[in-house]
Amino acid sequence: MNQCDKSFGIFDSGVGGLTVVRAFHDLLPKESIIYLGDTARVPYGNKSSETVRRFSKEICQFLLSKNVKAIVVACNTASAYALTALKQELSIPVFGVIEPGVQSALAATRNGRIGIIGTTGTIKSAAYQNALKTIRPELYLVAEATPLLVPLIEEDWLEHDATRLVLEQYLEPFHQAKIDTLVLACTHYPLLKPLLKKMLGSEVVLVDSAEACARYVQNSLQGDDWFSRREAAISDQIYLTDLPTHFTSMATRFLDRKLDPVQVVQVGGV
Amino acid sequence: MNQCDKSFGIFDSGVGGLTVVRAFHDLLPKESIIYLGDTARVPYGNKSSETVRRFSKEICQFLLSKNVKAIVVACNTASAYALTALKQELSIPVFGVIEPGVQSALAATRNGRIGIIGTTGTIKSAAYQNALKTIRPELYLVAEATPLLVPLIEEDWLEHDATRLVLEQYLEPFHQAKIDTLVLACTHYPLLKPLLKKMLGSEVVLVDSAEACARYVQNSLQGDDWFSRREAAISDQIYLTDLPTHFTSMATRFLDRKLDPVQVVQVGGV
Repeated sequence: MNQCDKSFGIFDSGVGGLTVVRAFHDLLPKESIIYLGDTARVPYGNKSSETVRRFSKEICQFLLSKNVKAIVVACNTASAYALTALKQELSIPVFGVIEPGVQSALAATRNGRIGIIGTTGTIKSAAYQNALKTIRPELYLVAEATPLLVPLIEEDWLEHDATRLVLEQYLEPFHQAKIDTLVLACTHYPLLKPLLKKMLGSEVVLVDSAEACARYVQNSLQGDDWFSRREAAISDQIYLTDLPTHFTSMATRFLDRKLDPVQVVQVGGV
Repeated sequence: MNQCDKSFGIFDSGVGGLTVVRAFHDLLPKESIIYLGDTARVPYGNKSSETVRRFSKEICQFLLSKNVKAIVVACNTASAYALTALKQELSIPVFGVIEPGVQSALAATRNGRIGIIGTTGTIKSAAYQNALKTIRPELYLVAEATPLLVPLIEEDWLEHDATRLVLEQYLEPFHQAKIDTLVLACTHYPLLKPLLKKMLGSEVVLVDSAEACARYVQNSLQGDDWFSRREAAISDQIYLTDLPTHFTSMATRFLDRKLDPVQVVQVGGV
């Protein structure tokens, strides 16, 4: 098979990375996707860097065995902890979600005051903070772990009063800091964009790391050899390490379209 | 070593089972505990029965290698999915948290209307429902998955307005059903007892499966050969498969005392 007609490999700890798959569908509709959700070991957000790195390497070996042309780490925690190691070890291009989010935030901010929300692991890794500060040291950054958002999104309580109350508390430091840009540093969070827009007002730009990632991959891979010459994409292949309750209904919301059949596989020790 | 002076092995998917350790401290203060929290693969509540069974077997092999005298499955999901298999395969006594919770609920109810809250996996397994109905078929049962409670407890939002709103929605079916007994079918939930008591009123008995489990083990193991003859317990041994952020502060709240040093170990494929 020509390189250009191979699939993109995309992985996440679970269902969240499907927002990146959706962004690929929207921006690069001819590209076929092989997705691996590590649902047997989800979530990564509260696990150590060594463990997340090991899991990520195991998953990349699986995706390589499926002959993908490039790999997208559609998980902020894995991007923070494992991307450097994966780039060193793999001979195909590897992309994370952090660099694209950072570039989008830099392009969006006018007052130089940027907020970041994500899982405990992503925020603690300081990957966004360090990347932003390295490029523009004078930025004023506020980063907050918001661990209740993933379970609220998975419950589909996207407009629930409890979600508003949780967000009121979580967003308080960002109001005080007068940010004009908020980075959604978790691939689940795009589903909360409507409520976040209402609560933050139109003056705050929301950086959706899933959309940013798809655009970044499109811009980074130059030349004809990388992108599909098919008339249309072939069906996505969705692999999981476990089939959780309600996966299909949840995945359908994340993808915003009907889910292709799912296969359960063992990866690494799982 | 005499059997009586060996330790009890207790395991959970993460930190929640420490409420069972605390109940052992309170009820059986001379007993020493070897605890394994499978923090690299937490949570179990949304994983399939096969996966939970495999993880549980791997953990029991680890505890057997530590020479424990009996094993307590301090995790409702693992009790629901793996206890029968573990009892068949192991030559030492194995206890779960479901049977003790069921017995306590049957002793507590006066009107025969019992509620059950737990993770999606525990409720879907119908383990409590089936056990209760088998013993007393005329019971009226209401079982609801309450997946937001674990993250709220781990955030330490035990009295937060958002937690009240979440509980208001989750408890609505139980108010309507006029239950007089609510089984807390997750080892995290005892930390929410003060708020639950306020919201449900004194007429509803809360069955704490951690306390019920310690009592059940005490009553089940008869004779002098099972319980420690030491003057006092030796230090607990706490093992984890990963050392998550904030583990120590969270564990201290669950145990309600200072945590003994924690060791990270590999179990099974993790």
